[in-house]
Amino acid sequence: MVSLQFKSLDVCFTPAMIHLYDISESVVVVIDVLRATSSICVAFANGVKSIVPVATIEESQQYKSKGFLIGAERNGEMLEGFDLGNSPFSYMDPIIDGRDIALTTTNGTQAIAAAKNAYQIVAGSFLNLTVLSDWLVKQDRNVLLLCSGWKNSFNLEDTLLAGAIVSNVKDHFEFTKMRDAALAAEHLYNIAKHDINGFLEESSHRKRLEKLNIEKDIVHCLTPDSAPVVPGMINGVMVDLLRV
Amino acid sequence: MVSLQFKSLDVCFTPAMIHLYDISESVVVVIDVLRATSSICVAFANGVKSIVPVATIEESQQYKSKGFLIGAERNGEMLEGFDLGNSPFSYMDPIIDGRDIALTTTNGTQAIAAAKNAYQIVAGSFLNLTVLSDWLVKQDRNVLLLCSGWKNSFNLEDTLLAGAIVSNVKDHFEFTKMRDAALAAEHLYNIAKHDINGFLEESSHRKRLEKLNIEKDIVHCLTPDSAPVVPGMINGVMVDLLRV
Repeated sequence: MVSLQFKSLDVCFTPAMIHLYDISESVVVVIDVLRATSSICVAFANGVKSIVPVATIEESQQYKSKGFLIGAERNGEMLEGFDLGNSPFSYMDPIIDGRDIALTTTNGTQAIAAAKNAYQIVAGSFLNLTVLSDWLVKQDRNVLLLCSGWKNSFNLEDTLLAGAIVSNVKDHFEFTKMRDAALAAEHLYNIAKHDINGFLEESSHRKRLEKLNIEKDIVHCLTPDSAPVVPGMINGVMVDLLRV
Repeated sequence: MVSLQFKSLDVCFTPAMIHLYDISESVVVVIDVLRATSSICVAFANGVKSIVPVATIEESQQYKSKGFLIGAERNGEMLEGFDLGNSPFSYMDPIIDGRDIALTTTNGTQAIAAAKNAYQIVAGSFLNLTVLSDWLVKQDRNVLLLCSGWKNSFNLEDTLLAGAIVSNVKDHFEFTKMRDAALAAEHLYNIAKHDINGFLEESSHRKRLEKLNIEKDIVHCLTPDSAPVVPGMINGVMVDLLRV
């Protein structure tokens, strides 16, 4: 393997800033902790064959006639007429084993679309933190951790996961190429890491989701390493790169 | 004074995200700690009458013939043919007393331009931290702290000042309207506050400036409260709002 001379490690806090980065030679880790990329990890850990991220409700409905299960979430809630929502628990149902899913969400699938020019897109969550970190180190490439945020604004939970990944992988990167956003994310993770759920209690997205009565989802999404998968895009379709 | 029902307090990490905020009723604090807004504060503390922020080198040169002193910085360095650069110490020269200045910088004056739709633009730095915080509380308006960043990317030093302002003023704002970016900035400030200079030693802009041999500038820019002024825009011209 030819080693790139200067591997960089950076965090992009929202898809609204993705145009500032040259990602053509980078692995971009899309992060939507609450809850799209967490649910994607759970799905692959439970035997899903592939996930097609789609931007619109209409587009995902077209996949239904092709034999796909369809999942959709807008503003934190599941939509009528869909098989699946955005709760990680709905992706533990044995019916998903071996199936293909078309998925659209408020933030996560939009972030995947924003990263379309990346060398490789993968999905990150606390649920695949260790396996993903180990995989990233082996790629020997520039890494950009792309937080989905909330409707393009900064959010804390995605930043904390970015910080956790930085903490895991930074020693394998050229330190002088680590940028301020990566430093900030790691600092925030270091404050939060012993009680991430407690740290996030004052955060805005957390408050938004509180109204939806999904405390169980949140606790699950913040618990590391229950889904040892690396969901990655190949020709517009997400598969578990560890099983390809 | 009529009190707005819900005052919000938020931080925008870069001018590249300003379009996500409705700032028409907000006070926007433009922050470019190293060094534009620090130098602007020093200038007003040393008797400057007004500062016109201009976007281009060419535009600022046109002001010279109108009797203005002209200041310019690009990529951290002063430009030939200009009276002033971006070092706070050059704005302590007695020649600036009573004068008008046209100023263009890599990040700071671009951020001022990005905030042009604000109800009120003011300049923030560690040098006017306490006076500015007190002034903000009295305005009884939504406040957005706009970090200039480095060429539209996130930077740590501007975020720390944003966090310091959040820490000073947050008890006067509706807590439920404080967003994640403000929480993150305050957390980072709380880690850094006992040794801001040390905390920033690993930051990228700091490293960039190190090459320019301006350690003295940096230390000055990170020291609170030597310039008790509130530079604010009135009809395209910045003046000290405490002396209007």
